[in-house]
Amino acid sequence: MSNEVIFRDDMTVELVKSSASDADVIWAARVSTAGEQSLDEIGEDPARSAGLINYLARERHGSPFEHTSGEQSLDEIGEDPARSAGLINYLARERHGSPFEHTSMTFFVSAPIFVFREFMRHRIASYNEESGRYRELKPVFYIPSKERKLIQVGKTGAYTFEDGTKEQFDISVKAMKDAYLIAYDSYQKMLDAGVAREVARVVLPVATYSSMYVSMNARALMNFLSLRTAREGSHFPSYPQREIEMVAEKMEAEFAKLMPLTYGAFEKSGRIAP
Amino acid sequence: MSNEVIFRDDMTVELVKSSASDADVIWAARVSTAGEQSLDEIGEDPARSAGLINYLARERHGSPFEHTSGEQSLDEIGEDPARSAGLINYLARERHGSPFEHTSMTFFVSAPIFVFREFMRHRIASYNEESGRYRELKPVFYIPSKERKLIQVGKTGAYTFEDGTKEQFDISVKAMKDAYLIAYDSYQKMLDAGVAREVARVVLPVATYSSMYVSMNARALMNFLSLRTAREGSHFPSYPQREIEMVAEKMEAEFAKLMPLTYGAFEKSGRIAP
Amino acid sequence: MSNEVIFRDDMTVELVKSSASDADVIWAARVSTAGEQSLDEIGEDPARSAGLINYLARERHGSPFEHTSGEQSLDEIGEDPARSAGLINYLARERHGSPFEHTSMTFFVSAPIFVFREFMRHRIASYNEESGRYRELKPVFYIPSKERKLIQVGKTGAYTFEDGTKEQFDISVKAMKDAYLIAYDSYQKMLDAGVAREVARVVLPVATYSSMYVSMNARALMNFLSLRTAREGSHFPSYPQREIEMVAEKMEAEFAKLMPLTYGAFEKSGRIAP
Amino acid sequence: MSNEVIFRDDMTVELVKSSASDADVIWAARVSTAGEQSLDEIGEDPARSAGLINYLARERHGSPFEHTSGEQSLDEIGEDPARSAGLINYLARERHGSPFEHTSMTFFVSAPIFVFREFMRHRIASYNEESGRYRELKPVFYIPSKERKLIQVGKTGAYTFEDGTKEQFDISVKAMKDAYLIAYDSYQKMLDAGVAREVARVVLPVATYSSMYVSMNARALMNFLSLRTAREGSHFPSYPQREIEMVAEKMEAEFAKLMPLTYGAFEKSGRIAP
Repeated sequence: MSNEVIFRDDMTVELVKSSASDADVIWAARVSTAGEQSLDEIGEDPARSAGLINYLARERHGSPFEHTSGEQSLDEIGEDPARSAGLINYLARERHGSPFEHTSMTFFVSAPIFVFREFMRHRIASYNEESGRYRELKPVFYIPSKERKLIQVGKTGAYTFEDGTKEQFDISVKAMKDAYLIAYDSYQKMLDAGVAREVARVVLPVATYSSMYVSMNARALMNFLSLRTAREGSHFPSYPQREIEMVAEKMEAEFAKLMPLTYGAFEKSGRIAP
Repeated sequence: MSNEVIFRDDMTVELVKSSASDADVIWAARVSTAGEQSLDEIGEDPARSAGLINYLARERHGSPFEHTSGEQSLDEIGEDPARSAGLINYLARERHGSPFEHTSMTFFVSAPIFVFREFMRHRIASYNEESGRYRELKPVFYIPSKERKLIQVGKTGAYTFEDGTKEQFDISVKAMKDAYLIAYDSYQKMLDAGVAREVARVVLPVATYSSMYVSMNARALMNFLSLRTAREGSHFPSYPQREIEMVAEKMEAEFAKLMPLTYGAFEKSGRIAP
Repeated sequence: MSNEVIFRDDMTVELVKSSASDADVIWAARVSTAGEQSLDEIGEDPARSAGLINYLARERHGSPFEHTSGEQSLDEIGEDPARSAGLINYLARERHGSPFEHTSMTFFVSAPIFVFREFMRHRIASYNEESGRYRELKPVFYIPSKERKLIQVGKTGAYTFEDGTKEQFDISVKAMKDAYLIAYDSYQKMLDAGVAREVARVVLPVATYSSMYVSMNARALMNFLSLRTAREGSHFPSYPQREIEMVAEKMEAEFAKLMPLTYGAFEKSGRIAP
Repeated sequence: MSNEVIFRDDMTVELVKSSASDADVIWAARVSTAGEQSLDEIGEDPARSAGLINYLARERHGSPFEHTSGEQSLDEIGEDPARSAGLINYLARERHGSPFEHTSMTFFVSAPIFVFREFMRHRIASYNEESGRYRELKPVFYIPSKERKLIQVGKTGAYTFEDGTKEQFDISVKAMKDAYLIAYDSYQKMLDAGVAREVARVVLPVATYSSMYVSMNARALMNFLSLRTAREGSHFPSYPQREIEMVAEKMEAEFAKLMPLTYGAFEKSGRIAP
């Protein structure tokens, strides 16, 4: 076999590009209702409120492109980060979701097919995935790490997961490797016999790694994180499969860096997408 | 093994329910621009045009619910089916797509996971699929029928598919069955050892049958058919994988029965979704 | 003026057609994860649980179309309405939203343009609206009823509305009528001079009544109701303009009749769309 | 009146920010099927093809963020712009639309309400619009320029527009100004009497200027341009109202600068969105 079989237990998430900053949210809110409303609401001190608005307006006209890059820090958008945070918290709390949409993040993700199957149920996103119709797929397969909780206990709908025994882990890894090797061998046999890739690939397991580009705006991403991570203190509990949560956690880390105030507001409001 | 392994080469599509008739399109068009416009445009004979409008209006007020069921025949909506066809052809040709959206069809589909993977890239649709996290999956796997063209010839991007030899067919079926049986055996071993279903299922191939409910409106369905069937005379060529085309063909047959004028317009306009 | 000017203070909402019943939700949930899960979870008595599933399966195969009409009562889907309600409450509470999507309701709505402007921000819906480009618009305009609270008090973002004085009401009605009559007169003058309808109509106020067909599934409708009605006990407060709330209330009444268990679950879960 | 009434006949479109370049399309295509396929297909010279891929890969790993800004010129992505153009033309021609979605453009638009009413029917976009509920609206109204064709001739559905007479122009401008002034006067009277903004604004005409942020990806934008501009040589004819076309033309100019190869492919394929 020319291809070396690889077993992996981790996920790849790279931020490819972004146009997503807290300032984007503030700008969009200012155009619409919500911004005006909340700038007043949170403004115990009208003079300062006016100051911020003036500052933003001045910046806006002076150099409209400057404040829109992904790297923009809050320092750039106002003398008063606390006020910016206040506005963003207000928008998240009151479910004014649209200002969060004028942002875009593109990720490169490499993960098993069963993760992508769950991921692509999220319809407010753009996807381009590697295709088994046009490429010969590489023999890269998922096996759980030793940290993966293998056992599900409790009644359906109220599951918790617990550590498996060493024996359970060993049985799983062996059963998986056996199946993967035979599957890939079958795949190669068909390709060697001249059978089309799109036919041969049907034997490959859902544990096979694939890769994709996915683009989302911050509102859609918060919805994704809300459903695909399990976290203490979430307003609504979620029960994601651990493997998609591993992907979500890496996306969350990138999001938190790009949009710290928005991320803070997401956390504060119980991890509900506005 | 308590579960008998099944190999299938066909797809199941059942129309579960629908609220989709040509009359729905005509009613929606009449409310908006396009209907008015085209009723005039196609009206060589204003008296008859007025007659149809009056007829429709009369029906509408007399019994608003009668003409909305899926089974409605064209006879019910007007003395003049030719005029109804004319309006619908006009809407399709001129890409007035919105009147086609006030319709809904729900299908039960049973097909391999690799087909569902392509299907769910269509985002203007609603899905509920069987889950390997909560159910033990049945050992039902796809193998090609003897009619399935196994060989891909020509340059990439300009493929055609051709029949394989008997040997290629035999090699494929054997390679598939070998892989499926080992995979399902590995699955069972993990379940027997007490491993969670969501972990054990990762070994199963994308050829495993799954089932889902999918709901679409007629516009989204036409877009799906446009991309997932290959047909002589299509305005834009498509290169669907044969297995999703098998599903699409069965959906198309149901659609043609429910909305014969709309289906005719779709065909006439080169199978482009309006 | 050939057209009699009409002043209205009410909204028209008619359910044109629907394919939406609680049974649709249960069927969709059964196909997917959530159904299985919750049927177990809520089933203290496995025998009864099995009974319901068997009953549903029997019905399903016996007559697949029977249980899908909008009028279906709960009696038809199970001997045990309490269990059906339990499943639907579970889905709503746990935010398993997709089973609610396999439903469709089409409404005819007649309301002022300013209401439609807010309505059409809801993107998960299908619209066909009367067009001022192709039709001469009728002189029908909105004026508030005496019940409409005219005064807004409190800080921005924490408004409440209160009754206006009789003088404020009289000033408003007179100011509105004056503006409407001049606007419509200007419109007619341009039409009489041979100017295109699409140009002439720009003078018409946002209070002008328009009409549309709108189709939504139950999940999208719950989201709409959540944002466009203000109700004691809602989990998240909303501050809709009264006029769109009048439309939403009429839609809500139709929804409650079609899908009583789903509606109950919506109420119980704090009027959050799942 | 503290506010000076302004009559305008033009539209404002500013590109606020973007993350949209031809390279984004090429990268996304390479991950998925289409890229691989077409890079081969268009590759008469495999050595050069490999060269481009290697070049892209090298760039990609060397500095993943560099090639993603909106300003990126084609020179940066390959020694061979002709090949890049070839790939993008192929994607557009074959309707591989998804690679065009990993892009984002945010525009600030100021235009009359009747334009926004048409604009917001496009559902694959994000909007934040100025609100008459929270802000006192400024007296800025649309009147046609002398170039605006005022007369509609021909049968419905086959209209063309022609110049009006000077008299028709004068009648229109006078009728409009009369209506606008009364409307704004009525608005002010209600506000002066203490009536809530959301009530008072109902008298304002659809010619009133509003402003919004709108974000779209390149695929959605091409669909918008396809429907909202009328152009010789379009594959499908469109009949947009002139005023929204004025907005679309300004958006098109920005798009053409950001993504010249994609724009060229759009033109070449008959201005159909892929």
